[in-house]
Amino acid sequence: MRFSVLLISIFCAALAFAAERPLIHFTPEKGWMNDPNGLFYDRKDDIWHLYFQYNPNQPYWNQPLYWGHAISKDLTTWTHEKLAIGPEHADEGIFSGSIVVDHNNTTGFFNESINPDQRVVAIYTNNADIQTQDLAYSLDGGYTFTKYSENPVLNVNSTQFRDPKVIWHQESYQWIMTVVQAQQYQIQIYGSTDLKHWNLHSNFSAGFTGYQYECPGLIEIPIVGTNETKWVMFLAINPGSPLGGSSDQYFIGDFDGFQFKPMDSYTRLVDLGKDFYALQTFSDVEKTDGVLAIAWASNWQYANDVPTKGWRSSTSLVRNLTLDYISTNPEKKLLSLVQTPVFESNVSKSTEKSNITLQKNDSIDFNADSGVFEFELNFKVLKKLTYPEVPNLDLYISTKDGAESIRFGFNPVIQAFYLDRTTDAFKNPFYTGQISANVEPYLDNEYKVHGVVDRNIIELFFNDGAVTMTNTFFLSEEANPCTMNLTSNMNDEFHIRSVSFKELSV
Amino acid sequence: MRFSVLLISIFCAALAFAAERPLIHFTPEKGWMNDPNGLFYDRKDDIWHLYFQYNPNQPYWNQPLYWGHAISKDLTTWTHEKLAIGPEHADEGIFSGSIVVDHNNTTGFFNESINPDQRVVAIYTNNADIQTQDLAYSLDGGYTFTKYSENPVLNVNSTQFRDPKVIWHQESYQWIMTVVQAQQYQIQIYGSTDLKHWNLHSNFSAGFTGYQYECPGLIEIPIVGTNETKWVMFLAINPGSPLGGSSDQYFIGDFDGFQFKPMDSYTRLVDLGKDFYALQTFSDVEKTDGVLAIAWASNWQYANDVPTKGWRSSTSLVRNLTLDYISTNPEKKLLSLVQTPVFESNVSKSTEKSNITLQKNDSIDFNADSGVFEFELNFKVLKKLTYPEVPNLDLYISTKDGAESIRFGFNPVIQAFYLDRTTDAFKNPFYTGQISANVEPYLDNEYKVHGVVDRNIIELFFNDGAVTMTNTFFLSEEANPCTMNLTSNMNDEFHIRSVSFKELSV
Repeated sequence: MRFSVLLISIFCAALAFAAERPLIHFTPEKGWMNDPNGLFYDRKDDIWHLYFQYNPNQPYWNQPLYWGHAISKDLTTWTHEKLAIGPEHADEGIFSGSIVVDHNNTTGFFNESINPDQRVVAIYTNNADIQTQDLAYSLDGGYTFTKYSENPVLNVNSTQFRDPKVIWHQESYQWIMTVVQAQQYQIQIYGSTDLKHWNLHSNFSAGFTGYQYECPGLIEIPIVGTNETKWVMFLAINPGSPLGGSSDQYFIGDFDGFQFKPMDSYTRLVDLGKDFYALQTFSDVEKTDGVLAIAWASNWQYANDVPTKGWRSSTSLVRNLTLDYISTNPEKKLLSLVQTPVFESNVSKSTEKSNITLQKNDSIDFNADSGVFEFELNFKVLKKLTYPEVPNLDLYISTKDGAESIRFGFNPVIQAFYLDRTTDAFKNPFYTGQISANVEPYLDNEYKVHGVVDRNIIELFFNDGAVTMTNTFFLSEEANPCTMNLTSNMNDEFHIRSVSFKELSV
Repeated sequence: MRFSVLLISIFCAALAFAAERPLIHFTPEKGWMNDPNGLFYDRKDDIWHLYFQYNPNQPYWNQPLYWGHAISKDLTTWTHEKLAIGPEHADEGIFSGSIVVDHNNTTGFFNESINPDQRVVAIYTNNADIQTQDLAYSLDGGYTFTKYSENPVLNVNSTQFRDPKVIWHQESYQWIMTVVQAQQYQIQIYGSTDLKHWNLHSNFSAGFTGYQYECPGLIEIPIVGTNETKWVMFLAINPGSPLGGSSDQYFIGDFDGFQFKPMDSYTRLVDLGKDFYALQTFSDVEKTDGVLAIAWASNWQYANDVPTKGWRSSTSLVRNLTLDYISTNPEKKLLSLVQTPVFESNVSKSTEKSNITLQKNDSIDFNADSGVFEFELNFKVLKKLTYPEVPNLDLYISTKDGAESIRFGFNPVIQAFYLDRTTDAFKNPFYTGQISANVEPYLDNEYKVHGVVDRNIIELFFNDGAVTMTNTFFLSEEANPCTMNLTSNMNDEFHIRSVSFKELSV
C-alpha cells in the first residue's frame, strides 16, 4: 500500500504542469468527446462497451464526427478501441444513438455463427443534409460495423430529428425507439419488429423546453423496497436549461408499448450540477446489475473552451438508477430517481473520524496527491439558527500548495449545499462559479454526502443518491486537487457523525 | 439640462462610500422587505398602492412582520406610508396576500359613505401557530386597516397554507382565491361570494417543485395582436429553484371559474435571473393600463446577507404583461409571457450611435454618475462562427474609477446572453456570479436588448420583453455603476444597428 502511494506521488510530480486526465472517469486520450452512445453489455464475453460522439482530429466539436469506442471489464477503467462508425463525407457526422443486442436475429443481419449475445445493432442519427435514423451491425461483437445497405430506416425529411434510443419491450413484443423532433419539442415513440420498419405510436412533450430537445430515453426502473417498477422518460435540453446551457430532466409514468403516460405534471432534473447531460442507459444489462447509465460531464456553454490540453470532456461515473419516495420537505415524499455511482478502485490511503462537534476553525484534513479520492460525510446540524446567521460547514479542496481551492459546503439556514468552483484557471462568462442543491435531511437534521473527486470533476451524491450534483472544475496549470480541509465558521453547530477520506487508485 | 447633470454629480460625490438605494426601484428606507403584497390601483384618487412584507426593526427577515405601505402616482417614485397591518403578537407575522376593491360591498364592511372604488379589502395569511387566511378592510382607501372580527376566513389547520391572491371572476360572478398548500405542492382554487366564506373548487399542481410552492396567482392576460386572452397561473418556488433558491414559473391555460386547465405540459420561467420572486399583479387596474405586476428583486439564498446598509431588498420595476407567440428556435413559436417595464423618468443625459460595425477593442462609451440609466441595443451578428471561436459582444458597467465592473454580453456561438456580476464587494457561495439567457433572434441574426440599471440592480428585456433577466449586483463601498463600455473581441462580427444610453432622473 505504501508503495502504491509512493508511485502515485512520483507520477503526480512528473505530471505537474501537464495535462492530467481524470483516472476513473472515461476521457478520450486526445480530441473531442460529447454524448455517450450505444452503451451495451456483452453477456458472452462479460465486457462493457461505451461508444461516444468523437472528433479525433481536434479538441473541439467538428465534423467528420465519429462513434469512438472503449471497453471495460469493471466499468471503471476503459481500454480505447478503434473508431467504430464514421460518416461517408467529411462534412457529415454519425450522431448520437444506441445499441441493442438482437438475440433473436429480428433484423436478419446475423447467421448462426454469431452468438445471440453478440448480435450487435447500432441505431444512430446520420447527420448530412437532413438527419435520418440509420442502422449498422457488427459481426465481431461491437468492434467493427457494417452499415445497413437500405439506410435510412427512418426519415421524416427533417434537419432536426435525432438521437434514437432503442429498447426491447417484452410485453408488446417489439422494439421501441424514442427519438426527438428536436425543435418541435416532441419525443416520438416508434415501434418495430425488425429495427428496419418503424411505426409512429405516439408523441410526448413536457417539462422545460429550452431551445430544443435532445437525447431521449425510456426505461423501466424498479422502485426500491417494492416489487413495482415505473417507466422513466429521460429528456435532455440544450441550450436554454434554467441552470444555463445543457441539462437532463425526467418524467415518471407508465408505458404500455404505445404511449408514455406521466404519473404527475412535475418537471424533475436528473442532476443539479452544470455538467451532466445526454444520459444514456446500457442495453442488455443482467437484471441483477440493475439499470446503469452514463452521462456526458460537460456543458455546451463552455465545453469547447475548457483549459484541458489536447483532449476535451469526460463522462460521468456509471450510475445505478432506482426509484424511491424521497422527502422533499417535511410534508411530502416524491417518487424520485436515486443514483449511486458504480466503480471499482483500490484505496491507496484513507482516514476516518467520527463523533466530532466542530469548533470554529477546527479542521479535519487529508491529502491525496493523485487528485483522485472519495469522501463520505455524515453530519448533524445541532442548532436551529435563522437570519441573519451565515453558518457554514465547508470542505475546501485545494492544490498541494494551497494556492487554489474550490469550496463545497452546507448552510443550514439556507438549507442547501453549495459548490464554489471559481478559480483563476478558467474564466468564461458561462462557466457558472456558484452552484447549489437544496437537500432535505434524511433524518432529523442529519445529512449524508458521498463525493467523488477525480482531478477536474466532482460528483456529489446526497443522502445515498436522492439528490446529485456533478460539476467540472479547473485548477491553474492543471495542478491536482490534493488537499482537503473540513472546517466550520461556527462553534457547536455541526456534529460530524463520521467522515472518511480515501485516496483511490486503479 | 446641464444644471440637472451637475446636481446629480454633486449628489453622487456626496454619497460616495455611503449607502445609495436604487432610485426608480422601490426599497424600504430602512429595515427588511420581501414579497410585494396587496397591489391595487385606487381609481378614484388615481393612486397606486404597494404593500410589502416588512420588518422595520432590522435589516433582515424576522417577526413581528408587517405589511409596509407606499403609494405612487407614476409607478416610479413612491411615498412611504405608515405600517398598514401588523400582527397581534411579536412572534407572529402578517404574511403575504392581496387586496381587492369590493365595489359592490359583497363583504358588508362598507356603507354608502365609502366610494365604491375605495372599498379596500386585504386578504392575507396570518402566521401564528398555524397559517390561516384572514381579512382586514380599510375605510380610508388603504391607509389604515381594521381586522375582520370573525377571522380567520379560511383555516385548514396547516402550518404551511399561505399567500392568498384574490381576483373577481366576472363570468362566474364570484371571488376566486389561489392559495398554496405549500409543502403539498398544491395550488388550491377557492370561490366565494362575500370574501368571508370560501369553497374549494379544485387543486392544481405542476412544474418544478423545489422545496415548496409559494405566492400563486391567476390572471387573464391578452394575446398581443388578437382579441383573445389566456389565463396564466403564476407560481413561486423556494428554495430549490433550478437556478438556486427562489424562482417564479408560470403555466398558460383556461379557467372556467372552477378549474385551471393548462394548454400544454411545459414548465416556463417568468424571468431567467436570480433575483425575481413572488410576482404579484395589481388589482383594479383600468383595462387600458393592461396587466401590471411587481416582483421582489432578490433571492432567499442571500437576501439576508447582501451588503446594503440599514435596508435590504428592492422590488422589480412594474411590468406590463401580455402574451405572444415567441420564436424559441427556428421551427417553433411558443405562447409566452412578454414583459415590458413601466416607469416615468427624465433623461439627464444621453447618447445614441448607429450603424457601427465593431472592430476589435473599439469601445462605445457613456458615463452616468448617478448610477441610474437605461440602454437600448439593437445588433446583428454578421458571421456564423462555430467552435472553438469565442466571440463576445461585451457591455462592461464599471465604477467611476473603473476598478470594478460587471460584464453583460452575448456570444453568438453559444447563442446566449450572459451576465457576470462577480465583484469583491459581496462574496457568498449562493450568490451565483454567472447567469445566462438563451435568446432566439427576433429577425435574421438580430437581437434587441433593453437594459435598466439602477445602482445595484440590472433588469434586462430581450427582444421587446420576450425574455427577461433580473439580477442584483454589489460594488465595493456601494460605489455607483457609472461607466459603460460597449466593446468586442472580434473584427466585423457585430454590427450595432443602434445603441442609446440615457441617464435617468426623477
